[in-house]
Amino acid sequence: MTLRTPDQYVTSLRDGRRVFYRGTLVPDVTTHPVIGRAIRHASIDYLMAEDPRHSGLAVVEKNGTHRSRYFATPCSGDDLLKRSQLIETATRLGATLVVLIKEIGTDALFALGNVSGEMDARLGTHYSDRVRAFHEHCASQDLALAVAQTDVKGDRSLGPSEQAALGNPDAYVRIVARRDDGIVVRGMKTHTSCTTNVNEVIVLPTRAMAEADADYAVSFAIPVNTPGVTLVASPHGGSERDDFDHPISSKHKMMETLTIFDDVFVPWDRVFMNGEWQWAGPLALAFVEFHRFTAISYKLPLVDALVGSAMLLAELNGVERAGHVRDKLSWLIGYAETLRALVQASASRFRLHANGTAVPDPLTVNIAKMHFATNYHVAVARVQDIAGGTLVTAPAGADLDHPELGDWVRRAMMGKVGTDAVHRLKALNLASDLTSSDFGGYQEVLAIHAEGSIEAQKLTILRQYDGGAAKSYARDLAGIDR
Amino acid sequence: MTLRTPDQYVTSLRDGRRVFYRGTLVPDVTTHPVIGRAIRHASIDYLMAEDPRHSGLAVVEKNGTHRSRYFATPCSGDDLLKRSQLIETATRLGATLVVLIKEIGTDALFALGNVSGEMDARLGTHYSDRVRAFHEHCASQDLALAVAQTDVKGDRSLGPSEQAALGNPDAYVRIVARRDDGIVVRGMKTHTSCTTNVNEVIVLPTRAMAEADADYAVSFAIPVNTPGVTLVASPHGGSERDDFDHPISSKHKMMETLTIFDDVFVPWDRVFMNGEWQWAGPLALAFVEFHRFTAISYKLPLVDALVGSAMLLAELNGVERAGHVRDKLSWLIGYAETLRALVQASASRFRLHANGTAVPDPLTVNIAKMHFATNYHVAVARVQDIAGGTLVTAPAGADLDHPELGDWVRRAMMGKVGTDAVHRLKALNLASDLTSSDFGGYQEVLAIHAEGSIEAQKLTILRQYDGGAAKSYARDLAGIDR
Amino acid sequence: MTLRTPDQYVTSLRDGRRVFYRGTLVPDVTTHPVIGRAIRHASIDYLMAEDPRHSGLAVVEKNGTHRSRYFATPCSGDDLLKRSQLIETATRLGATLVVLIKEIGTDALFALGNVSGEMDARLGTHYSDRVRAFHEHCASQDLALAVAQTDVKGDRSLGPSEQAALGNPDAYVRIVARRDDGIVVRGMKTHTSCTTNVNEVIVLPTRAMAEADADYAVSFAIPVNTPGVTLVASPHGGSERDDFDHPISSKHKMMETLTIFDDVFVPWDRVFMNGEWQWAGPLALAFVEFHRFTAISYKLPLVDALVGSAMLLAELNGVERAGHVRDKLSWLIGYAETLRALVQASASRFRLHANGTAVPDPLTVNIAKMHFATNYHVAVARVQDIAGGTLVTAPAGADLDHPELGDWVRRAMMGKVGTDAVHRLKALNLASDLTSSDFGGYQEVLAIHAEGSIEAQKLTILRQYDGGAAKSYARDLAGIDR
Amino acid sequence: MTLRTPDQYVTSLRDGRRVFYRGTLVPDVTTHPVIGRAIRHASIDYLMAEDPRHSGLAVVEKNGTHRSRYFATPCSGDDLLKRSQLIETATRLGATLVVLIKEIGTDALFALGNVSGEMDARLGTHYSDRVRAFHEHCASQDLALAVAQTDVKGDRSLGPSEQAALGNPDAYVRIVARRDDGIVVRGMKTHTSCTTNVNEVIVLPTRAMAEADADYAVSFAIPVNTPGVTLVASPHGGSERDDFDHPISSKHKMMETLTIFDDVFVPWDRVFMNGEWQWAGPLALAFVEFHRFTAISYKLPLVDALVGSAMLLAELNGVERAGHVRDKLSWLIGYAETLRALVQASASRFRLHANGTAVPDPLTVNIAKMHFATNYHVAVARVQDIAGGTLVTAPAGADLDHPELGDWVRRAMMGKVGTDAVHRLKALNLASDLTSSDFGGYQEVLAIHAEGSIEAQKLTILRQYDGGAAKSYARDLAGIDR
Repeated sequence: MTLRTPDQYVTSLRDGRRVFYRGTLVPDVTTHPVIGRAIRHASIDYLMAEDPRHSGLAVVEKNGTHRSRYFATPCSGDDLLKRSQLIETATRLGATLVVLIKEIGTDALFALGNVSGEMDARLGTHYSDRVRAFHEHCASQDLALAVAQTDVKGDRSLGPSEQAALGNPDAYVRIVARRDDGIVVRGMKTHTSCTTNVNEVIVLPTRAMAEADADYAVSFAIPVNTPGVTLVASPHGGSERDDFDHPISSKHKMMETLTIFDDVFVPWDRVFMNGEWQWAGPLALAFVEFHRFTAISYKLPLVDALVGSAMLLAELNGVERAGHVRDKLSWLIGYAETLRALVQASASRFRLHANGTAVPDPLTVNIAKMHFATNYHVAVARVQDIAGGTLVTAPAGADLDHPELGDWVRRAMMGKVGTDAVHRLKALNLASDLTSSDFGGYQEVLAIHAEGSIEAQKLTILRQYDGGAAKSYARDLAGIDR
Repeated sequence: MTLRTPDQYVTSLRDGRRVFYRGTLVPDVTTHPVIGRAIRHASIDYLMAEDPRHSGLAVVEKNGTHRSRYFATPCSGDDLLKRSQLIETATRLGATLVVLIKEIGTDALFALGNVSGEMDARLGTHYSDRVRAFHEHCASQDLALAVAQTDVKGDRSLGPSEQAALGNPDAYVRIVARRDDGIVVRGMKTHTSCTTNVNEVIVLPTRAMAEADADYAVSFAIPVNTPGVTLVASPHGGSERDDFDHPISSKHKMMETLTIFDDVFVPWDRVFMNGEWQWAGPLALAFVEFHRFTAISYKLPLVDALVGSAMLLAELNGVERAGHVRDKLSWLIGYAETLRALVQASASRFRLHANGTAVPDPLTVNIAKMHFATNYHVAVARVQDIAGGTLVTAPAGADLDHPELGDWVRRAMMGKVGTDAVHRLKALNLASDLTSSDFGGYQEVLAIHAEGSIEAQKLTILRQYDGGAAKSYARDLAGIDR
Repeated sequence: MTLRTPDQYVTSLRDGRRVFYRGTLVPDVTTHPVIGRAIRHASIDYLMAEDPRHSGLAVVEKNGTHRSRYFATPCSGDDLLKRSQLIETATRLGATLVVLIKEIGTDALFALGNVSGEMDARLGTHYSDRVRAFHEHCASQDLALAVAQTDVKGDRSLGPSEQAALGNPDAYVRIVARRDDGIVVRGMKTHTSCTTNVNEVIVLPTRAMAEADADYAVSFAIPVNTPGVTLVASPHGGSERDDFDHPISSKHKMMETLTIFDDVFVPWDRVFMNGEWQWAGPLALAFVEFHRFTAISYKLPLVDALVGSAMLLAELNGVERAGHVRDKLSWLIGYAETLRALVQASASRFRLHANGTAVPDPLTVNIAKMHFATNYHVAVARVQDIAGGTLVTAPAGADLDHPELGDWVRRAMMGKVGTDAVHRLKALNLASDLTSSDFGGYQEVLAIHAEGSIEAQKLTILRQYDGGAAKSYARDLAGIDR
Repeated sequence: MTLRTPDQYVTSLRDGRRVFYRGTLVPDVTTHPVIGRAIRHASIDYLMAEDPRHSGLAVVEKNGTHRSRYFATPCSGDDLLKRSQLIETATRLGATLVVLIKEIGTDALFALGNVSGEMDARLGTHYSDRVRAFHEHCASQDLALAVAQTDVKGDRSLGPSEQAALGNPDAYVRIVARRDDGIVVRGMKTHTSCTTNVNEVIVLPTRAMAEADADYAVSFAIPVNTPGVTLVASPHGGSERDDFDHPISSKHKMMETLTIFDDVFVPWDRVFMNGEWQWAGPLALAFVEFHRFTAISYKLPLVDALVGSAMLLAELNGVERAGHVRDKLSWLIGYAETLRALVQASASRFRLHANGTAVPDPLTVNIAKMHFATNYHVAVARVQDIAGGTLVTAPAGADLDHPELGDWVRRAMMGKVGTDAVHRLKALNLASDLTSSDFGGYQEVLAIHAEGSIEAQKLTILRQYDGGAAKSYARDLAGIDR
C-alpha cells in the first residue's frame, strides 16, 4: 500500500519552498494561518482514502497495490463516471470547494499522455516514456500536484514573442537556455491553484503558438521547492473568519499563486515539450477538455448547496408556499439537475483516444460548463431573494451567548412557528457565506473564469458541433438540392 | 402482418364523422383542402412502416405478427429510447411537425394501463382487462388515435361542479346517465389534436377532482364517428400557402378541434373510469408523464431545424465569422443539445411501474420540457436576427419566373459570393415559415402550452425533486444538527 | 389650405407606376386586394388631418397655411414630443401598425437638411437649397414619401466596389452616368416600406463608403412613377384574412418592396449627394438618428396592446389573481412604460444642430430601441402564456353563426363567470393576430431588424456614451492618479 | 447658520447609547474600529455642507437661516430632481455607498407629513402638529436620523397578533402601555441602517394591519440613547480591510442593527400613530414611495462605477475591441442610463399631495427599482467577465513593496502595452471590492432586498398602472363593444 496519510502529506510540504504572503516570506506553510487552512482543506483527499465510507471510491487496487483513483487513466464511460463521482464526493466533503490537489494534475497527465503519443508518432520524439514515468512516479508516491497553465499574458492582443519585442518577455514562460542535462525556463504563470500545498507543479502552454513563439512552447514538471521557483500567494479570501458567521470559508480555502520561474533548471526527463510550437495549442486544448469535465463534476455540490439552502430557508422563513418562492425553487432545481444530466451525458458520450484513454465528449462538457457559468449569478440572486436581507444584517454568534442579549437575539431570529431560531441563523450564515461574502464573490468569479472563459466555451461548442447534419436537415426542409 | 397502408388509413376516415370547418359541415375530410393536408401529413406514420429505411424503427415483430412500435409498452430505458427515436424520426419526416396519430394515443394507453392496475388493486374494479382489450384492438387494427383531455374549463378559478351550479355544466365532460349497457357523456373538450383524422378518441380527465365532481371523473374511448360526437375544427393555420414561400406549412398541418359530446353513449367495455374521483388526478398526471416525454422527443427536429437554418443562413449571408453571430449560434447549439441530453437522461433514469412498464423519469422530463419552453422564443429571436429582415420582405417565387424580373430578383437575393441566390431565398423562406408566419406562431404557442403549462412543469419539478437530500446537505454545511 | 383629402391621396397613386406582385404587373395599385389594404391603412394620415379629434395634433398652421405637422422641422424638445405623439397617435389608429407615409420621409428630410448644411459649409456645395426646395415641394403638396436606404448588399463581408469587381455591381445603388441635366442611377434597394403607395421616394446611402465607392455615395429623390423604377412587392402577410379571426391584419397592412433602379435619370435639383463619399456615413447615421426616434414612438401602441390584451385575457380567463400571471403582467407593464419613459427622455435631452434643428438624444434613443428590441420576444411569450393555447385552436367566427353549433361554441368560449364568450373569443383572436400569426411574425422580425440591427444600436450606444466620465469616476474610486 | 460641523456630529454620538458588537458592549462608538469607519463615512454629509463645491446643493437658505437641503420638503418636480442630485452626489462621494443619515429620515418625515394630514382630516387627530414640530427640531438642529421600519416578523405567513397568540409577541414592535405622559413600546426591528451613528430613530409600521393588530399600529421618534433601546450591530462587512486591496470597503461602511425596544417610554409629542390600524398600511406605503425614489437616486453612482470599472479594465487589459466585450459594455451602459432616465422621469411625473408635497411618481419609481434590482447580478457578472479571474487571485499591495518581488509583480500585472501595472492592479482591486467581496455581496443583497422586495415592487406596479386605458385599447382593437 503506497497511499500517504494526511500527516505524511502535510509533512511533505515543509521542504524549503519559497512562498510569499502579503510581501512576507512564509517560513512554514503548514502553520501559516491562511495557507494552513488550505492545507487542512486539501487533506480531505488523504482522509478519504483512509475512510471506509469513501475508500471504495477513492482507492483502486491493481496487482495488489493500492493507489488513488485519480491516477487511474479512464478507459470507458464508466471510468469517467466514477472519476466524476470521486471529484463530486471530495468536493462535497470540501463544503462545495474543490480539493484539487490531484484532480487538475491528473487532467494534465491524461492530456500529456494523449498528446505526447501523437507527438512521438508524428515527430519521432520520445516524450511518451517521460510522461509515463512521471505519471508512475506521482501515482506510486501518492503526490499532490498543481498545474501552472495561465501565463500572465500582458497585452491580450499580442502574442508571446511580440511582447518580448516590446520589452515584456516574461509575460509567458519560455525556454531561455538548452543545456546538456536539461532546459532553463523563465517567466510567470498566474492563477496557479494549490501551488502552496502540493509536491509537484506541471507546466503547460496556455494557447496555440506561432513559429516565432517556439521557445514559449514548453511543458515540464518540477518539485515546488526547485531553486528559482517563487510563489506569491493571493490574499483574496484570506481574512480571518468567525466560524459561526462563515461556516464554510472559516474552514475551507484554496490558495492561488503568481508563480515565478526565475531561470529554473528542468532536467530532460521532466521536459514534455521543447519548442514544438505546433503542439502547444493541441496540448492546451487536450488539457482543457479533461479539466472542464473535472470542473463540471466539482460544481455539483455547489449547485446542490444553493438549491438546498434555498429550500431550507424557504421553509425556515415560512414562505415555502409563496408562488414566487416556488417559482425560484423550481428554477434552481432545473439549473442544478440540468448540470447533473449534462455531466453524466459527457461521460457516457465519451470518445476513445488512439491510446485507449476515454475523453469526455467535448461538446457536452462545454455546453454543461456554459450552462453552469452563464446562469450562476441568476442562481445566486434567487437564493439571496428567498433568504432575505438578513444575509447581510444578521447578528453575530457571540450575541447569542451574551446573557442579556441572547434571548432577544434568539427571538429576533425566529422564523416559521416551531423552528429553531439558531438553526435559522445558521442557515442564513451558510447562504451568506456561499453567496454574499468574499467566498461568494470568489465562487462567482470562478464560475465565469475558471477552466477558461465563457467565450472559449462558445468557440469549442461551435467547433465540436456537427453543423453539417443540422445544415443538411435545413437544406432538405428548404427544398435545396445539392 | 396487420399494418395498414396509407391508403387504408385514408379510406378509414370516410366514416360519416361530423366535422365542421368555418361553420360548414365537411362532407369528406380526406378531400378537404385543409384537413386533407393534415391527413397527408399524418400518413407519414403508415409510410414509415412501408419504407425499408424506417421500418426497422417503426415496426416490431412479435410472434410472427408485425405491429407499429408505438403500441409496444416500454419495459426498459432502451425501449423508451427507441420509442423516443421513433417519435423524433417521424417528426423529422414531418418537417418539424409531430405526426401524433399514435404517439399521444399510446401515451394514454400506457397511463391507463398503469392506473387501471392500481385502481383494480385498490378498489377491486376490473378496468385493466378493458384497457388491455382496447389496447390490443388498436394495435391489431393499426388504428390512429386522438386523446381528448383538456376540458373547455370555463372559469379557471372554479371546479367542474361549481360551474355547473352557475349554469355552465358543459365546461367539463361528465357522465349524465348510467345505463345497463354503458354510460352517457356530455360536455366539451378543447385542443383535441388530430381528431379529424384518427379512428378512435380516448377521453381522459384533465385534473384532480373533488368528491362533488365525481361525475366528471370519467375516462373512455370511442370511434370518432360515434353518434353525438361533433368536431369543430380550428381554422388557425388553414390559409392556402404557396409552397415556395412556405416550404413547411404548405405541406404539413395538424388539426385541432373543439370536441363536442352531445349525450354520447359509451358501452361498458370502453369505460375506463366511472366516477372514481380520487383517481382522476393520478390518471391525468400519469398520462402527462408519458406525454411530456413524447413531447420533448418530438421537439428535437424543431430545435435542430432552428440551429440548422441559422447556420445555413449565417453562411449564405456571409456573416458566419461575425462575433455576435457566433455567439448566437453557440447559444442555439447549447439550447438544442441540452434538450437532447435531457431526453436521453429521461429515458435512462426511467422508473419501473409495478406492472413492468418503464416510465420516463418525471423530474428530468419536466426539466427538459421547461428548458425547451422557456427558451423557445429566445431561440426564435436569434434565428430571426441571423436571418435578417428579408424574412418578411422577400419577393415571391413567381417573381423568379418572370422573364424581366427574374434576373433582377436573383441578383437581389445573392448573398456571400459564390452562393446560389435561389438557395438563399429558399433558406430564408424556410426560416420565415418556421419562425415568422402562422406556422411559426403556432409553434410558439405550442412551446408554451402544449402538454401542460410551464406552471404545471414547475409544480412537477418541485414535487419530484428529492428536496430532502438537498436540505440535508445544506444542514450539514450550516452545522445544524437534527 | 394645402392638405390633401384621402381620396386625393388614393387618386394620386394611379400614375402609371410599375409594381409587381407575385410575378404579375399590377394595373392599378388602389384596387389590388393586398396593396389596396395597405392604401386604406395609409389613408389614416389624411383622415387624421380631417378629423377634429386629431387635426390639432396632425396639422400646423403657419402664415395662414395649413400643413401636415410631419413636415414641421423640430426646433425644441417640445416639438420632438409633439412629433412623437403624432406618430404614436397615428399608429394607435393604425391598430399598432405604423402609417409611415410621412414619418420616415420627414426623418430623411431632416437628416438631409442637417447634413447638406454641413456639406455646403465644408465643401462649398449647394445642396441645402435643393433639399429645402424639395422639402417645401413635399410639404406644400402634402405628399406621401418613402425612403429607400437599405441596399441589397450581396456579400455582407464586402463593400460596394469590391462586389462590383466580383460581378455584382448592382448590390448597391450607384451613379452610372453624369449628364448635363442630371445623373443616371442603377442598382437595387430592399425593405423599402410603402413604396407602392407613396408619391416620392427618397434614396439615401446605407453605410459609410470608401473612396473607391464614390459612385455609390448618392442621394436623391424622385417620383415613384419615374421611368426605370420597378417595385417588386413582397407577398409576406398578403394572405386573405377573415376579419373576425384577424381583427388587425385583415384591415391593416404595410407593403415592402424590392426597388429596382434600371438606369433611372435624376435631374440635378433632385440630387442631394453626388460622389462625396466621406459624407455617405454621416448622412446614413443622421437619418437613422431621426428614424429610430420615430421607431420608438410608433412602437408604443404595440407594447400597449400587448399589455392591454394580456390584462384583458387574464381577466376574461379568470386568472388575474394567479401569482405567475401577476408576475407576467407587472413585467409587461415595466417593459412598456420603460420604453415610454425613454422616448420622452430622448426628446427632452435633445441636441440642437447648428441649423437650429432639434435632434433626439442618440444615446437615449438607441437605449430605448435596444430595450424594445431585445425584450420583444419575451413580451410575446408572456402574452401567449397568459392567453392560453386557444390562441391557435379557437373555432372560427362562422361557427358562431351556425344554428346548431353557435350555442355550443359560445359555451365553449366562456371564461370567467359573467363574461361574454364572444368577447373572450375576440380578445383571443386579437392576441393571436398580434403574436401568433403572419402579422405577429412580421412584428417580431421588425422588432429585431427595422431601423437597423441590434448590433448597430450597440455600436451607437458605445459611441455616444460619455465613457470618459465613467472611467474617471472609476479611477477616483481606485485611487489611480493621472 | 444652524448647520453642524463634522466634529459636532461625531461628538453628538457619545451620548451613552447602548450598542453591542459581537456580544460586547461598545463603550464609545466613535472610536470603535468598525463603527468608527461608518461614522467617518457618514460625516460626508456634514463635510459637503462645508465644501464650497457641494454646499450649493447640500444647503438651502430660508429667511437667512441655512439648513441641510434634505429637510426641505419637495414641492415640485424640480425640487425632487435637486434632492435626487444631492443624494446621488453624496453617494458618489461615499464611493457608491449611500450616506443615509438624512435621506431615509426625511423620507419618513415627508411620509409622516402627508399621512398625518390625512389622518387628522379624517379622524380629527392632531398628529400633523407633532410631525411638523419634530421635523423642525431635526432640521434646526441638523440631526442625523435613522428609520426603523422592518419588524423581525417571525413567521412570514402570520400577522403580528397571530404570532403573539403563539408566544412570539415581540416579532413586531407594539404598544404595551398607554400612560398620561406617553406610551410604552416593546419589540424588535431589524435591518435598521445607521442606528449606531445617528441622533434620532423614527419608527414606522412595516405593513398593513388588521383590527386585532391595533397595538402594533404605532409610529414615533426617539433619541437613540433613550433608556430601553439596545442596538445589536451586525458584524457583516466588519472584517479589517487592507486599503490597497479594498479601496472602497476599507474606508466606507454602513452599519445595520437589530434594534431592541425593551419597554421604552415615548412622550406624546413624539407619538405619530397610536393604534389607528387602518393607517398603518398607508403610512408604510407612503414612506416606501419616497424611500424608493431615494434608493434609485443613490444607486446611480454604483451603476456608474460598474460601467466605469468595466470600461477601464477593458482598456487596461487590452480587450476593448473584442466583440463580446463591446457587447457587455453596451449592455452595462444601457442598464445604467435606463435607470438614470427612469429616475428623472419619476421626478418630472411627480404627483402633488393635498398638502403641497411633491411625491415622485410611484409607477415609474417602482419600474426603476425593479429594473435596477432584477438586472443587478447580470451587471456584476459582466463586470467580472471583462475584468478577468485576477479579481480573486491578485497579489497584495505589500508584494509590490518587497525589494525582490516588487519588480516581478509589477511585470506580472502589466496589461495593454503602455499602461501602468499598478493602475491595472488598483482597477482590479476596485472591481473586486465592488463585485467579489463582502462588500460586493452586501451590494447584491441590498439590490434585491433594500427598500422592499422585488415582489413588493411588482405589486405596486400592478396597482399604480392605468390598466383601464390599456384594456380599453385592447377592446377597441378586438372589436369588443361595451
